[in-house]
Amino acid sequence: TTLFRSACSCAMSEQNEKKLAVGIVLYDGVTQLDYIGPLTAFAPHFRTYLLHHTLDAVTTDIDAVIALPTATFDQVDQVDILMVPGAPHKHINRLLCDTRFLAQLRRLGSGAQYITSVCTGSLLLARAGLLDGFRATSHWSALEVLAAMGIETVKQRVVHDRNRITAGGVTAGIDFSLTLLEKLKGIDAAKLTQLMMEYDPAPPINAGSPEGAGEKLTAFARQSSKKDVDEGIRIVATPASL
Amino acid sequence: TTLFRSACSCAMSEQNEKKLAVGIVLYDGVTQLDYIGPLTAFAPHFRTYLLHHTLDAVTTDIDAVIALPTATFDQVDQVDILMVPGAPHKHINRLLCDTRFLAQLRRLGSGAQYITSVCTGSLLLARAGLLDGFRATSHWSALEVLAAMGIETVKQRVVHDRNRITAGGVTAGIDFSLTLLEKLKGIDAAKLTQLMMEYDPAPPINAGSPEGAGEKLTAFARQSSKKDVDEGIRIVATPASL
Repeated sequence: TTLFRSACSCAMSEQNEKKLAVGIVLYDGVTQLDYIGPLTAFAPHFRTYLLHHTLDAVTTDIDAVIALPTATFDQVDQVDILMVPGAPHKHINRLLCDTRFLAQLRRLGSGAQYITSVCTGSLLLARAGLLDGFRATSHWSALEVLAAMGIETVKQRVVHDRNRITAGGVTAGIDFSLTLLEKLKGIDAAKLTQLMMEYDPAPPINAGSPEGAGEKLTAFARQSSKKDVDEGIRIVATPASL
Repeated sequence: TTLFRSACSCAMSEQNEKKLAVGIVLYDGVTQLDYIGPLTAFAPHFRTYLLHHTLDAVTTDIDAVIALPTATFDQVDQVDILMVPGAPHKHINRLLCDTRFLAQLRRLGSGAQYITSVCTGSLLLARAGLLDGFRATSHWSALEVLAAMGIETVKQRVVHDRNRITAGGVTAGIDFSLTLLEKLKGIDAAKLTQLMMEYDPAPPINAGSPEGAGEKLTAFARQSSKKDVDEGIRIVATPASL
């Protein structure tokens, strides 16, 4: 049956089938959950590369955790799916000025079947010119920076516009990964993956969006990142020299 | 206002306040998402230790990712919160026989204010004698192993019984972490954390539980882990010699 073949190709190693390659871009400050969620869903189905300029460890959003690239940009000619995770604004701002980094995104994006991001990763895609003319989303606190680059922003958990798929903040990456998995490996593979991850969410509190958190808390959160967000808007006022 | 003080203590570094210590236990095969989700929520609020026998890297459920402990068991006398993430069954089975590892769980558990787990981590807590007389949960595929140790199992995303909090599979760790955060740091800290993680889940598919995935897919998933689950049940038939 179709179910059996699909589930089978998911559970068993697909060594005889050429798996699609996912390139996940790492950098100092990267938010771990932005890519560990999707990577958990992707790992059984795709070849995965964790990419950076060198193989040296990068710092992450969590002090106790460092991340190790598995390949350098130079070692990878092409990926089928480019995925750029996000980071706190101060780290994103640094990369918005990093033409060497942005050039690698542009290069990998030019050969990719899907160009994707989680959280503030979409700001990096946009800065690399990879979202021109596409609708996209980002972490709720970053939408105004995305808009400042002329991108049509959409407040939605996952935004799919042609071959661009962008996700909202942090945990939205899990929803994104199942969306992409369904598209590329079929509904049964996506379902089986969701079942193994027991992704049947039941948040004990309803504060996962500005609307749910309420005005006071959202204003406080906005205030705490305001300096960095304003700096981001200032940076993108000048086009990147790629 | 209370809101401001609470949010403030969350956003700003609490260097003047003695933060509670969370000990997250690492081991070969550990499922990354089981602890990266909670760690993302905990990191701003608690001191966090990633614990193992040595500081050497451990393998994880994802081939492309290794994890680095930040402290050895010997370096940490006591933690306020013990958290044991899970792993695929074959790795858990190995640890169900590892008295040296189980003795460390028992030691850390004896001094902890909260004893917690995500996914199949509860099998390790139970094997270390730390769930005797408590209701608990686990990954849906592991409930029968937990029951085989005489634990009253509950099919629920987060199970809280006195100072034991156990979570269901993988992504349930995020729900667990917000539950614990609310308890220890208050509702505003939990809400602000949920907002920053944009944890407003919207799974594109409804297959995150056996009920949602349906009989066929669940039977297939059960079959693929049956040998390891049966081995786990056989192992726990003999009490651990701690």
